Amino acid sequence: MRFTLALTMAFAAFAQAPATPPPPPIRSPEVAADRTVTFRLRAPKATEVLLDREFSKRTPMVKGDDGVWTLTTEPLAPEIYGYRFVVDGTLFLDPVNRMMKTNLLGSTSAVHVPGDNSWDERDVPHGALTEHFYESKIAGDRRSYFVYTPPGYDARASKKYPVLYLLHGFSDGSDGWSVVGRAHVILDNLIAEKKALPMLVVMPLGYGEPAILRGPRTPDMGRTNVTKHKETLLQEVIPQVEKMYRVAASPAERAIAGLSMGGGESLYSGLTAPHAFAYVASFSGAVPEQAMLDGLDESVNKKVKLLWIACGKDDFLFKRNLAFIDVLKEKKVKHVWNETEGAHTWPVWRRNLTVLTPMLFR
Amino acid sequence: MRFTLALTMAFAAFAQAPATPPPPPIRSPEVAADRTVTFRLRAPKATEVLLDREFSKRTPMVKGDDGVWTLTTEPLAPEIYGYRFVVDGTLFLDPVNRMMKTNLLGSTSAVHVPGDNSWDERDVPHGALTEHFYESKIAGDRRSYFVYTPPGYDARASKKYPVLYLLHGFSDGSDGWSVVGRAHVILDNLIAEKKALPMLVVMPLGYGEPAILRGPRTPDMGRTNVTKHKETLLQEVIPQVEKMYRVAASPAERAIAGLSMGGGESLYSGLTAPHAFAYVASFSGAVPEQAMLDGLDESVNKKVKLLWIACGKDDFLFKRNLAFIDVLKEKKVKHVWNETEGAHTWPVWRRNLTVLTPMLFR
Repeated sequence: MRFTLALTMAFAAFAQAPATPPPPPIRSPEVAADRTVTFRLRAPKATEVLLDREFSKRTPMVKGDDGVWTLTTEPLAPEIYGYRFVVDGTLFLDPVNRMMKTNLLGSTSAVHVPGDNSWDERDVPHGALTEHFYESKIAGDRRSYFVYTPPGYDARASKKYPVLYLLHGFSDGSDGWSVVGRAHVILDNLIAEKKALPMLVVMPLGYGEPAILRGPRTPDMGRTNVTKHKETLLQEVIPQVEKMYRVAASPAERAIAGLSMGGGESLYSGLTAPHAFAYVASFSGAVPEQAMLDGLDESVNKKVKLLWIACGKDDFLFKRNLAFIDVLKEKKVKHVWNETEGAHTWPVWRRNLTVLTPMLFR
Repeated sequence: MRFTLALTMAFAAFAQAPATPPPPPIRSPEVAADRTVTFRLRAPKATEVLLDREFSKRTPMVKGDDGVWTLTTEPLAPEIYGYRFVVDGTLFLDPVNRMMKTNLLGSTSAVHVPGDNSWDERDVPHGALTEHFYESKIAGDRRSYFVYTPPGYDARASKKYPVLYLLHGFSDGSDGWSVVGRAHVILDNLIAEKKALPMLVVMPLGYGEPAILRGPRTPDMGRTNVTKHKETLLQEVIPQVEKMYRVAASPAERAIAGLSMGGGESLYSGLTAPHAFAYVASFSGAVPEQAMLDGLDESVNKKVKLLWIACGKDDFLFKRNLAFIDVLKEKKVKHVWNETEGAHTWPVWRRNLTVLTPMLFR
């Protein structure tokens, strides 16, 4: 039988009913075809609003009669830009933009100016991102790690994959390399182009000593953070991953890389015994103090197939990286040194990952 | 050989170097043991700051000599509360709080007052959350869906699992049910207590017509959004899930549930042919207009084992749900009606999920 339309059930009203009617919505940011970006903020009572955007100086926005502050940039290079609004001196996220650079010590808004960078999504086969949750006995907290599985990964097939352990920087969460670094997009693209081999990428939480996030920082905390992180990785994360996933559980099929704090952790975990990784890389690394690499000598060359160290010339850690390279030379530890453009920023690290991953597991 | 400490490489400076020294960090929100919550915002030049918190009226914050506005609540019931700061009339997220109620039309900050609710994390075995990315030919966009796999899920084992397809509401993204709804935590807890059977929960993007998010909305758009969503589900998502995961691919082992718009979609997809789901549930549903359920009659009772409809008494869709129940009665369609406390809010929907899932696949 057929229903009649006896009841009027309008299907339009999905949204939660607001207490008072909101003003008309604004769109921010808006990326035009010519790659100019318009930022907007409705703040009728503010006396000054500045745009604080990555790779640009703070710039005043202009208030319209409708109380909406606006700024349109020049055409921007394809990139992901973090930004905030400075409203009468206070930094705020863009209230109407969902895209963010997440960070445990304060996220910022973000805008993606598309192009053909390695982190731009393309219509290629996609891998998947899995978040695993566990209680860390070593670090004493609840935490998660993310696992990228490449397109076509099938736990029921016999093929075994190599694994890159990829570490974030200080203040990032375990989602840093996916949400901000877009590692899964980069790998999808490189694998589709056959530039990188299909691999898993495991992105753990990088704090061996979680108290380091909250401060105050004791003299030993930096060191403990790194040494205990290695324990979480070798005793907790890697055994879980190698139990759940079809991966080749040998150093030759494991790589470790990281940025900033994670670069230092990669060097420490990669260059000290037990030698669990044949590939070790550091991006803008907070390189370990020498006492932490006690015993490092040229014998490591038999265990580490590639030691790859990159830092941008404008990075505040550049000189430390140069000094670390000198030590490696002195100790006859084989390495590849990459002096790049750029500072201590995500665009550098996305490019580092794009250059590194094609060299792994060859 | 041992290294000397010839180089001083302080390991402390992990963070990005700020252009100017920031003021001392503030902590917001801070949940005390007595469940009072203190919110803080540094905004020395603002003339008025209000706290706009869920389930409470807007309340003025008080400015301190240090330019930090503060408000401490009374003890709050254990719950997750969305909130924003109203700074001279403009709604902003809390700049130093990472926890959010994500939403495609504007996220808010969130604070979790812990307790022993079903969505509080406990030290129980945890499942995993996997995000899958694909290009939808039907909806014409790039999108993702999340899959919760229960603790111990092993794609290599022979056991097959039932699947709940769980749909979000208008303005949510595919992460709504995990980030905001904490469905994975709820399932972990219910499975650990043996209240719910181990099951997969698939959380797709709920827009058949993505333009509905941006407006303007044409008269047919609401209907098209629902009918095309069913196509994305039956033709794209379910086949992918049933290919990749060890799931029982039969209606008896499939459930569909959703909130608000997703409740309407669940009723439409669950009650119209082909009948792919033996369990159908709607939380605060934007129930379909009758013309969309053309042909519905008591023969559906042979196909749908449980039709479960819940709505809070303070929900703006309550009367529509009552009217829909009357239609079901008139048509002799078996159903369970749940008149609950509450309005059109996530606390209601988390509780709905907690009550529903133990009844599934029995």
